Amino acid sequence: MDRDRILLTPGPLTTTLRTKLAMLKDWGSWDADFNAVTAGLRERLLDIVHGRDTHVLVPLQGSGTFSVEAAVATLVPGNGHVLVPDNGAYCKRAAKLTQMMGRKATVMPFAEDAPVSAAALDDKLNADASITHVVLVHCETGTGVENPLAEIAQVCARHGKGLIVDAMSSFGALPIDARAIRFDALIAASGKCLEGVPGMGFVFVRKAVLDACAGNSQSLAMDLHDQHVYMEKTGQWRFTPPTHVVVALAEAVAQFVEEGGQPARLARYSDNCRTLVDGMRTLGFKCFLKPEIQAPIIVTFHAPAHAAYEFKRFYAAAKQRGFILYPGKLTQLETFRVGCIGAIGRNEMTQAVAAVADTLREMGIPNGAPAL
Amino acid sequence: MDRDRILLTPGPLTTTLRTKLAMLKDWGSWDADFNAVTAGLRERLLDIVHGRDTHVLVPLQGSGTFSVEAAVATLVPGNGHVLVPDNGAYCKRAAKLTQMMGRKATVMPFAEDAPVSAAALDDKLNADASITHVVLVHCETGTGVENPLAEIAQVCARHGKGLIVDAMSSFGALPIDARAIRFDALIAASGKCLEGVPGMGFVFVRKAVLDACAGNSQSLAMDLHDQHVYMEKTGQWRFTPPTHVVVALAEAVAQFVEEGGQPARLARYSDNCRTLVDGMRTLGFKCFLKPEIQAPIIVTFHAPAHAAYEFKRFYAAAKQRGFILYPGKLTQLETFRVGCIGAIGRNEMTQAVAAVADTLREMGIPNGAPAL
Repeated sequence: MDRDRILLTPGPLTTTLRTKLAMLKDWGSWDADFNAVTAGLRERLLDIVHGRDTHVLVPLQGSGTFSVEAAVATLVPGNGHVLVPDNGAYCKRAAKLTQMMGRKATVMPFAEDAPVSAAALDDKLNADASITHVVLVHCETGTGVENPLAEIAQVCARHGKGLIVDAMSSFGALPIDARAIRFDALIAASGKCLEGVPGMGFVFVRKAVLDACAGNSQSLAMDLHDQHVYMEKTGQWRFTPPTHVVVALAEAVAQFVEEGGQPARLARYSDNCRTLVDGMRTLGFKCFLKPEIQAPIIVTFHAPAHAAYEFKRFYAAAKQRGFILYPGKLTQLETFRVGCIGAIGRNEMTQAVAAVADTLREMGIPNGAPAL
Repeated sequence: MDRDRILLTPGPLTTTLRTKLAMLKDWGSWDADFNAVTAGLRERLLDIVHGRDTHVLVPLQGSGTFSVEAAVATLVPGNGHVLVPDNGAYCKRAAKLTQMMGRKATVMPFAEDAPVSAAALDDKLNADASITHVVLVHCETGTGVENPLAEIAQVCARHGKGLIVDAMSSFGALPIDARAIRFDALIAASGKCLEGVPGMGFVFVRKAVLDACAGNSQSLAMDLHDQHVYMEKTGQWRFTPPTHVVVALAEAVAQFVEEGGQPARLARYSDNCRTLVDGMRTLGFKCFLKPEIQAPIIVTFHAPAHAAYEFKRFYAAAKQRGFILYPGKLTQLETFRVGCIGAIGRNEMTQAVAAVADTLREMGIPNGAPAL
């Protein structure tokens, strides 16, 4: 039996066969046919944020974190000062990579089970004029909490600060409109809500700040300004692109458009999330986040209190039933996570809940109720 | 007609259908099954250089250049001084990325149509004791020249200097034996002579220098020491791996082993190169390099002198006949390049020469003789 398992993870995730089939061809990375794929993809991605007038799209090789690091390196000058509102693991990672590259970064801590506060950010920007940029994680995948992008963007705009948004796990699913929300850079990746395969990221850079980015980056490979200038001039990537990943993403974006774009994707993921959460609740499981701040991307559940529970066994038993779960990322509490994204729908979520129920039975755990 | 064209380029290149078919499955990047693929791949790669006792293998997301940059960032401390013997475009790129990240780099110029000289390097290392590392490009893809790795390694070892080898386009084809050749780091990528698809690189790091690399990198994403420590501890990549690319490379390496490993691959590529060069000579074309320094990876040809020749038209006509050629990378001379690598053999090379002959006829060029 070699049926593919369903990935209930924040990416890589389950993709359609059509997306994967696009990889059955080798492309010359210098060839006009491939350049046309890149150009079309860049335009489609700009359309998703309504950003053709205001932004450019710069793709980059590597995982999403490479693109986050590249955005900071390219957008923030050497004497810049980055503020990172922190309510989870990916916020901490953004602060760390900023400090490692020699930029000043200040972490502004928030609780992990609450969104970052735009009012608190406003106060902080009033108190410290040296801050030049804010890095916001839109949906903090560590827990699944959605941060208030529109409000944060308004505060940054009012203070004249650059806003860099890590929209890795939200882009394509949650609404982001560049006509209404001012950001200097917004980052996402191929293997998330667009349902491509992993291997490249991309960054929307505001045209108004692009020229000033020249020479900021201390990394050749991650210099988004250089990547953009070269691509505009030649149609090509500066260094070898992951051709198969690029073509798979183009195919995934075509399906995204056919499905009805971001609103349709949000509707499907919301339904996935509801189906999952409702089903898990009937099994006694409890969500870590309150419903109103839960993005329909990935859900953190408290681990069951029962003595027979052990994540490794739980994971293995669910996997045997065809579903790949995801570990928790909280340091204080035992949790696990279940993704709602990928080329999956209500059937898969219903089956996943049934698999979890069966797993609990096998483990001799009467229900998923946590210790609280 | 949608038959795939043959890529006569230095990568991405033509891969087997078996390699591409491996991408028709989605893998959880946290799952034990995928960790086993990564672990197996790392061992197979170490076997190719006979490096299990002396080196570790650290894979990295992104193109080969990302891995070159990561190797320099991880191996060379902030106060290090890198010497780059320069006989082509990829040497210059290595020097540039070293300088951009704030490390001192000295370029040692050589002619583009000759290998770098081990004797001259010896003199240079005698003259400047501040040099800590040498970065050598093994096969300079800009022209196709093979540099004398063994001799350079001996000189570096004698002087106690670290050697970082960009073996991007040679690894898997040219012999490299870690038991006989001392290098601190050696870099290659998935989409070259191993005949995988592009999207990841990898670096062999000498165990003896590994611990001292901690904290050198100013890049989080490119910190090979951190990537290695995390991978040893968890079996996982630190950040989302390009799962489909990884699995395709594992499948490509399995075929590499079945074919007979490096000696078999070198034999096939050498035959490809001979078939190509002999055929092109009969059409009047002239190679840029002397045969004794020509690696059987990519061949630079002088452009024909005939007034009707224009690379763009030449390229388009060859493409129409099923073959993707590659532009030249020399600034002073008009040239073009033809790759000998990928899942292709004598048939494809013979057909390529026939396609070039037919192209010349169509363009009204009696033969490929250059201006010289």
